[in-house]
Amino acid sequence: MNRTNDQPAEAVPRYDEIAPEMGFREYWYPACLAKEISEKPLPMTLMGEPIMFLRRNGKLYALADECPHRGTRLSLGNCQFPGTNTITCVYHGWTFDVTNGKCVAALTDGPNSAVVNKVSARTYPTTECQGIVWIWMGHQKPVAPEEDIPPLFRQATIVKVVRRLAYGNWRWHVENPGMGHALMLHRSSLFMRVRTYPGFAKNIQPKLSDDGIDGTWLCEYCDDVGMAAEFPGLGVWPQPTLGRGLVHEDMSPLHGVAAKVSLRLPGITRVTHFPINGAMYYEWFVQTDADHYIYFQVCCGYSKTLAERASFLARYHLWGHFSGMIRFNQQDLSMVANSQDFVNRHGSWNGPTKLYAPDCFQLAWRDYAARYARDIAKRPAATANASTVAAGTAAAG
Amino acid sequence: MNRTNDQPAEAVPRYDEIAPEMGFREYWYPACLAKEISEKPLPMTLMGEPIMFLRRNGKLYALADECPHRGTRLSLGNCQFPGTNTITCVYHGWTFDVTNGKCVAALTDGPNSAVVNKVSARTYPTTECQGIVWIWMGHQKPVAPEEDIPPLFRQATIVKVVRRLAYGNWRWHVENPGMGHALMLHRSSLFMRVRTYPGFAKNIQPKLSDDGIDGTWLCEYCDDVGMAAEFPGLGVWPQPTLGRGLVHEDMSPLHGVAAKVSLRLPGITRVTHFPINGAMYYEWFVQTDADHYIYFQVCCGYSKTLAERASFLARYHLWGHFSGMIRFNQQDLSMVANSQDFVNRHGSWNGPTKLYAPDCFQLAWRDYAARYARDIAKRPAATANASTVAAGTAAAG
Amino acid sequence: MNRTNDQPAEAVPRYDEIAPEMGFREYWYPACLAKEISEKPLPMTLMGEPIMFLRRNGKLYALADECPHRGTRLSLGNCQFPGTNTITCVYHGWTFDVTNGKCVAALTDGPNSAVVNKVSARTYPTTECQGIVWIWMGHQKPVAPEEDIPPLFRQATIVKVVRRLAYGNWRWHVENPGMGHALMLHRSSLFMRVRTYPGFAKNIQPKLSDDGIDGTWLCEYCDDVGMAAEFPGLGVWPQPTLGRGLVHEDMSPLHGVAAKVSLRLPGITRVTHFPINGAMYYEWFVQTDADHYIYFQVCCGYSKTLAERASFLARYHLWGHFSGMIRFNQQDLSMVANSQDFVNRHGSWNGPTKLYAPDCFQLAWRDYAARYARDIAKRPAATANASTVAAGTAAAG
Repeated sequence: MNRTNDQPAEAVPRYDEIAPEMGFREYWYPACLAKEISEKPLPMTLMGEPIMFLRRNGKLYALADECPHRGTRLSLGNCQFPGTNTITCVYHGWTFDVTNGKCVAALTDGPNSAVVNKVSARTYPTTECQGIVWIWMGHQKPVAPEEDIPPLFRQATIVKVVRRLAYGNWRWHVENPGMGHALMLHRSSLFMRVRTYPGFAKNIQPKLSDDGIDGTWLCEYCDDVGMAAEFPGLGVWPQPTLGRGLVHEDMSPLHGVAAKVSLRLPGITRVTHFPINGAMYYEWFVQTDADHYIYFQVCCGYSKTLAERASFLARYHLWGHFSGMIRFNQQDLSMVANSQDFVNRHGSWNGPTKLYAPDCFQLAWRDYAARYARDIAKRPAATANASTVAAGTAAAG
Repeated sequence: MNRTNDQPAEAVPRYDEIAPEMGFREYWYPACLAKEISEKPLPMTLMGEPIMFLRRNGKLYALADECPHRGTRLSLGNCQFPGTNTITCVYHGWTFDVTNGKCVAALTDGPNSAVVNKVSARTYPTTECQGIVWIWMGHQKPVAPEEDIPPLFRQATIVKVVRRLAYGNWRWHVENPGMGHALMLHRSSLFMRVRTYPGFAKNIQPKLSDDGIDGTWLCEYCDDVGMAAEFPGLGVWPQPTLGRGLVHEDMSPLHGVAAKVSLRLPGITRVTHFPINGAMYYEWFVQTDADHYIYFQVCCGYSKTLAERASFLARYHLWGHFSGMIRFNQQDLSMVANSQDFVNRHGSWNGPTKLYAPDCFQLAWRDYAARYARDIAKRPAATANASTVAAGTAAAG
Repeated sequence: MNRTNDQPAEAVPRYDEIAPEMGFREYWYPACLAKEISEKPLPMTLMGEPIMFLRRNGKLYALADECPHRGTRLSLGNCQFPGTNTITCVYHGWTFDVTNGKCVAALTDGPNSAVVNKVSARTYPTTECQGIVWIWMGHQKPVAPEEDIPPLFRQATIVKVVRRLAYGNWRWHVENPGMGHALMLHRSSLFMRVRTYPGFAKNIQPKLSDDGIDGTWLCEYCDDVGMAAEFPGLGVWPQPTLGRGLVHEDMSPLHGVAAKVSLRLPGITRVTHFPINGAMYYEWFVQTDADHYIYFQVCCGYSKTLAERASFLARYHLWGHFSGMIRFNQQDLSMVANSQDFVNRHGSWNGPTKLYAPDCFQLAWRDYAARYARDIAKRPAATANASTVAAGTAAAG
């Protein structure tokens, strides 16, 4: 299928120009764990904005952490009227209904204060799913959370979360996954040193796929790999390594998902059989400020019996958690951190980079995001044929 | 009295636009303690400028701490000619008369150096009063110190000083005092938990007053308060607190000053009966750099007998110093620090703030400062009727 | 000789405007010690650029420490093909020939990757001399190292190096040397307190000299000094000091060099008989980032016999190293650090400074650099009469 037949090329904005430093806004993002939120406000910074999470009568709310009066952090306040859905600012006593952000009293001005019902703090839609708190920071009307939280994640019977505040930008981390980096960067990882591992990819094919299993994903398929080869003038690479093949690597489809690695808007990574066989792994990158993002890792299990659950947990805690989600992924964090220094030296997020064939997956991501991100006003219908994406990309290398 | 009859409204500049980040310059400010200054220079940064204080033959001087030759800190130098009023730069030996800043020798160039009497370091007028060193950093001719140092401060027989380098900007701290914040922010303070304390202000009236007692001050009068009230849909506030009323709060006029809290240019706070009954309390905010200011607190006593003095000192050291000037005022510092982060997020010092009725005192301050600050070239005579200010302000809430 | 007869005045650019913050580029600079470089890359930042040094088969190479693919630090990589002149990036396996920077393989893309021979990392010419690694960071074709590394340095039989990462800018340090600062700043130094030391310079004459001994240098000659004098209204200066004259100061020409202090492009200081009699001393200032430079100090000896060598080393290690190169020169570093704060306050590197007669040496440096620096495209021939420089300068004091 030819893109020019489908739509004019200029309809797709340049990803370089539109990928927002703080992330695409019109999506649900994970923020923290449901068990972390109590009556006492939890302050966070998300997408550069101060936000606080709190509960009232068991229900979860998120508000701008800034009193409209003098900008004081509302999270320094507390509830002066137990049992009500309110929080009172510590500075002058402005009191807000957390369900809608309305100022319902200015205590130090008495019951008849003129600001009552005239002023509001911004509220953010939230939801809870699998023990995680999700927030909608978009300017548009929120979509149903099910549109953004993948089905296979929602169906998991075991959910293990690891979070780190990472140095860098989400745009680099979402372009990190794929065979290109795995075959080199992770080769030295304990996790990979014991697996049978190819040397290079021969034919990477990115493909946008919505087959009703887990929503729409940009999948990285690769039907041919080379185990080792002679590089002219250099020698054979990779050389055999002691320990290779000790651990069986399951490459079979998992719950119908055939690609090892997939991406999805607003920037979610999905990996099958990671960090242990049978696990579905998701990553979210939630930018906090110009230089940091929350690296949100989730390992999902699908046990049906107690024995399956015990096996999964044992393998996760004895091996997958430490060797995979901690150490293996620390290598990725180092590369993204490195990129941030590169950005600071060159003054533009993508700098003077040159790409090679395996980057067709990254180029397909850029094309997919530029076409379909909800933040972009005039975008084609999301039902465009998946092969359009693959056809529209070619590595520059 | 109608302001439009008195003068055209456009004669008053907008305070938002003219309040200087580093403070109004054409005023005397406290800098340090007289006992801290010796022959050896003391370097400070005031209003963003490097300044050094030193004594020669017992007299106090302040000079720009920057050699006109190569910008070296003059405070690194010393006196090469004992008994003279000079300081010599450590780098090349340029020697300055500290009484007028004139270069009187360039030692390494011999007695006939061409720069002698051709080059000067800036000097700043200084004075000593109540053990405190005051500096004039204005560009205009200095006024008599008595114009800026309040009479009741000068008459004190006991002067206790507390200083802290605070994070934030003086413009926020000068707008902190008043009933609005006190009734909420300080309610939780140990200092206030034991006093009878109203719930809210009913009729705050700012009034510019020069009745010959302590110079001109913008006083916050409030002739009616509510002790507690039913807030619709929320409940009664404040709730009774254990300990309230243990300490008698003296609200009587002190030395003729009737208002509890007053403000004065360039940004002085005056509070009666704080931190102990019978004490007059003053605060100065001396900006040092873009993010910090010296928070200068002074507690004044007026003992006539040794017994009065002993009582004052005992109450100050056992209660007022710690519960008042340290802990109570630390709450204010937290709020100002908070505001600085707000400013950094929003990029303008006052940001998108919304005011309420008790802020009529803060609005009156802005109006008063915009009208009368010496920094503003074309301003009406300082004898304008005090009620003009009150009439010209109205809370936006 | 009159400058206007020689050439139009406008042919000389203003040094203030053209002296680069990171240093003149078209010169050889010392970077590190030869013994520090091994097969494992050593990362540095020079002139704001990330650079790595490494050896392959014993030979020294320098490359931009930034993979052209994604900007990753190449110095994180290693050699995947032992025995070859390559380094492989840790992220995706791009492999570079360190001799020319060419990408010779992209391992994870297999032997037929399209980027091979299409992409390069920048390489920098290097050389080794006297155990020091030198780098050419210019955009022009490198000159022969002998043009930039002084002959008397290359002929030394003893070379002692001290390096410090200093706070400040090279432009201030290169204007530090000379009699003006020495007679004041270093008077308090242990090193100078034991030497006979004049009070002031009477007739400083900068002279550009290329007499075939050590290349072209701007020499500071001074044929008359005053030991002490009466300063009108102040007294006699300097006063006699206990210990003066204990150590003999050799002022004789050293290997034909008559001036005590000399300067040379791109900013090299040369001092005779420092830090011990008979030693030739050189300083380089290699800027790393906006606020720091490497302060590279070298003490050269010229022993012909074992006894001479032993004497030199004993005097260096027991006295010259500590009292001279460490403590004496620490005074200079303090002054340059001071200047950086001055620059930050005033926003321009040279600020509102005023000069005096001994600064004729510094003005001659500016004139010399503005005329002859290779970075400046249209400059007169380097053979211009030396007296032109002296004639073209006059202290502003």
